[in-house]
Amino acid sequence: MTLHFQREVEKLKKMILNEAAAVEDSLQKALHALKNRDLELARQVVDSDDEIDAMEIEVEEEGLKILALYQPVAIDLRFIISTIKINNDLERIGDLTANLAARTAYLAKAPDVPIAEDIFIMATLAQKMVKESLDALVNMDVGLAQTVCETDEQVDNLHKKMFIFVEETIKKDISNLDGYMQQLGISRYLERIADHATNIAEDVMYMVEGKIRRHVRPN
Amino acid sequence: MTLHFQREVEKLKKMILNEAAAVEDSLQKALHALKNRDLELARQVVDSDDEIDAMEIEVEEEGLKILALYQPVAIDLRFIISTIKINNDLERIGDLTANLAARTAYLAKAPDVPIAEDIFIMATLAQKMVKESLDALVNMDVGLAQTVCETDEQVDNLHKKMFIFVEETIKKDISNLDGYMQQLGISRYLERIADHATNIAEDVMYMVEGKIRRHVRPN
Repeated sequence: MTLHFQREVEKLKKMILNEAAAVEDSLQKALHALKNRDLELARQVVDSDDEIDAMEIEVEEEGLKILALYQPVAIDLRFIISTIKINNDLERIGDLTANLAARTAYLAKAPDVPIAEDIFIMATLAQKMVKESLDALVNMDVGLAQTVCETDEQVDNLHKKMFIFVEETIKKDISNLDGYMQQLGISRYLERIADHATNIAEDVMYMVEGKIRRHVRPN
Repeated sequence: MTLHFQREVEKLKKMILNEAAAVEDSLQKALHALKNRDLELARQVVDSDDEIDAMEIEVEEEGLKILALYQPVAIDLRFIISTIKINNDLERIGDLTANLAARTAYLAKAPDVPIAEDIFIMATLAQKMVKESLDALVNMDVGLAQTVCETDEQVDNLHKKMFIFVEETIKKDISNLDGYMQQLGISRYLERIADHATNIAEDVMYMVEGKIRRHVRPN
């Protein structure tokens, strides 16, 4: 491939890594806001989602432009296609993070409802999965991508545990119903964020190995 | 483009329409099972999801093969890229339909819990959106795609209404907590199915117009 093509690919890589950094930053802020019941920070996260949406469109347009102009093949083609797909997952993580922050803002107004410890365990795992899936992308690290896929099961199990916990808690005392339903929502968003990190990891494996690895994960 | 290329594109089109038909069929069965509390039919839907997963991988591999072999440009390139993306949305609709059927199986075992009327209204709308988004794809109908995007707001509002309804219902009587939580889950799956139909409609608009239309829908 030509020098021009390489330059365009470098530009695309830089764009998606900028988007990834923005998503990671947003998620970190949302979890900080959750931990500290920080209404102002939660609102900032909700507001900043528009920027991530704009970045997503730019990345997709750049990826499509490269495909149209250079018609890459083999690993180059897989890189562009995977970037377009990962871009989509990043934008969804951004959306889910904004939703999570919106519920956090609600919880910040109900300081008497304790937040379940499992939420923080899930949050730590989901954040680690997002970080590692992006590290796997940068370093084309199939081993690390595999680790991300394996961690997903833990997050799924914690979400199931949260569902049972919330049901049992509100059966005993209905007075904080809203607060616990919001927490269940947060748990679900974390579970879906972990799913998207898994998608990214699977796309990294595809990019490196040229073989689709979806649907092999345990359900 | 060559005759060979046209043949491959026709094959890809046929493959994605077969997948779409399987997804529509699955959704229709799941909703029938919900209405009639048909445990056996709900289980069939859960089991058939593997076939849709297999179809998704075949479509993606075919799409990537065409990109690699023919390096299409302009509308042809947009068609292949959109197909790869729509394929992803179809598989997700299949997954959500299987999840919905799993909850339906649960409700079938609790015949004394009435199912909220709004669930059936949402189901009808979501099913219509899936059908219309696929019709828009077949006929490259931007107007119909636009209709799908507009309907999404109604489904979102019904889901919000369901959330309030479930909270109010269990506050009055906690005894059927599980049954109402399952219904809220079903409502959420329908809302997400409608979201994926909207994604498909937006991709159809992109395919025809060459302009990305995401994030312009009201939230």
